[in-house]
Amino acid sequence: MTTKSSQDYKSPLKERANVFLPSVSIDCTIFGFHDGILKVLLNKFKTNRKWMLPGGFVFLNENINNAAHRILSERTGLNEVYLKQFYLFGDTERVQPDENKQILDATGINQPHWLLDRFVSIGYYALVNHSQLRIYSTESEKVEWFHINEIPKLYGDHNRIIEKAIRSIRSQINSIPIGYELLPEKFTMSDLRIIYETILDRKLDRRNFQRKMLSTGVIIKLDEVSKKWGCKSACLFTFDKEKYNFAQKSGMAYSEW
Amino acid sequence: MTTKSSQDYKSPLKERANVFLPSVSIDCTIFGFHDGILKVLLNKFKTNRKWMLPGGFVFLNENINNAAHRILSERTGLNEVYLKQFYLFGDTERVQPDENKQILDATGINQPHWLLDRFVSIGYYALVNHSQLRIYSTESEKVEWFHINEIPKLYGDHNRIIEKAIRSIRSQINSIPIGYELLPEKFTMSDLRIIYETILDRKLDRRNFQRKMLSTGVIIKLDEVSKKWGCKSACLFTFDKEKYNFAQKSGMAYSEW
Repeated sequence: MTTKSSQDYKSPLKERANVFLPSVSIDCTIFGFHDGILKVLLNKFKTNRKWMLPGGFVFLNENINNAAHRILSERTGLNEVYLKQFYLFGDTERVQPDENKQILDATGINQPHWLLDRFVSIGYYALVNHSQLRIYSTESEKVEWFHINEIPKLYGDHNRIIEKAIRSIRSQINSIPIGYELLPEKFTMSDLRIIYETILDRKLDRRNFQRKMLSTGVIIKLDEVSKKWGCKSACLFTFDKEKYNFAQKSGMAYSEW
Repeated sequence: MTTKSSQDYKSPLKERANVFLPSVSIDCTIFGFHDGILKVLLNKFKTNRKWMLPGGFVFLNENINNAAHRILSERTGLNEVYLKQFYLFGDTERVQPDENKQILDATGINQPHWLLDRFVSIGYYALVNHSQLRIYSTESEKVEWFHINEIPKLYGDHNRIIEKAIRSIRSQINSIPIGYELLPEKFTMSDLRIIYETILDRKLDRRNFQRKMLSTGVIIKLDEVSKKWGCKSACLFTFDKEKYNFAQKSGMAYSEW
């Protein structure tokens, strides 16, 4: 899977006002895990001063959840992704008018323009397998992964959207087997633990973590080792797809961390 | 606390189109607990064929969460209520145009009217102390509590909104001390258990439930008994306000049910 080049991506700002549902936008916080670091995918058009979350607008005759999948696919090339609505952001001050005027000015789009109206934004988060998403920047659009602890000041309230997405995942960490979408098929227990530590924002005991994870029955220990960390080998694990699907529906059976 | 009479309540449908944020509405699922039954507050204007959730629209310059509190207060007279946003409902087919045409016809409002445009609705749930809310119906509006298992076919997708609200509370039942807002200051363990049983939709073991609840430290056993159930007396309990506030912020420390 690769991201589309921005040549393929038609800016929604060039659409007429009556193409999209008024007042409503969508922003996607896309999490990936790579080299022991939880990352977020951000993009920046040449015309923007600030980095922002990949987002878009809803067609008049389009269901909201379908719009979120379409926007994610258009912006990243990803389909069939774990995408979850988590909060609607609706403060009046969430985006400063100047930020949008600057974008329109730089894009050469005439004003008044519907982008200058107030928008509420529906926050979705996606958990994606970093290794399956090859991103590349073009002349008009940069796309980059950012370390979760090194996010710059973003457009509008997008920093708050990312924080809320993490808090939302944190509140569900006991009921959702969270690593499945973020990890390759085979992974070390350290990789899985780092994801939990990043989301919970605290260190977890190695042995307790492994014991709890295996006790859920969702994770299987393989008869293979990883040599990724040099001469020290680490056991590899995998998710039991069937039990994972069951746990997704009915909740995990482990206690608080 | 009492609900306002509908004479006090000015129908938002009489407002001009440019008073409210386009496309966005709010619907509140208000839960109360009384006589061992979890109930939902519904209303029905004389002009409506179907019962519906108390809801409303967002002023152009109003934050979304403030709008939800205002709407709840206007419709029920309740202030400072535990009110939580849980999902945005955005299917194109969520309300049939005929339903809204019928409401406008019956109200004598001219068409075309902005109510006939597409609306997404932000779902909020409120947990209220049933004994503190006196409701009364008027000539133009009926307001009634409905047994959670006896909800009629409602306006639009409002049945789905209630179901999703319950699922949302269920998914958080391990992290939020859910009974606090629903119960009077002093309550029996049976009352608390019935709330959990209703939300989880299954029977819980009496002794295990009491043990788990007390182990959280959020609930205190009082030196008083209730005679509500006739000659058989039941111990009374209360929430430790300070520990409750802490648990609200940091999550409860009990395991799955």
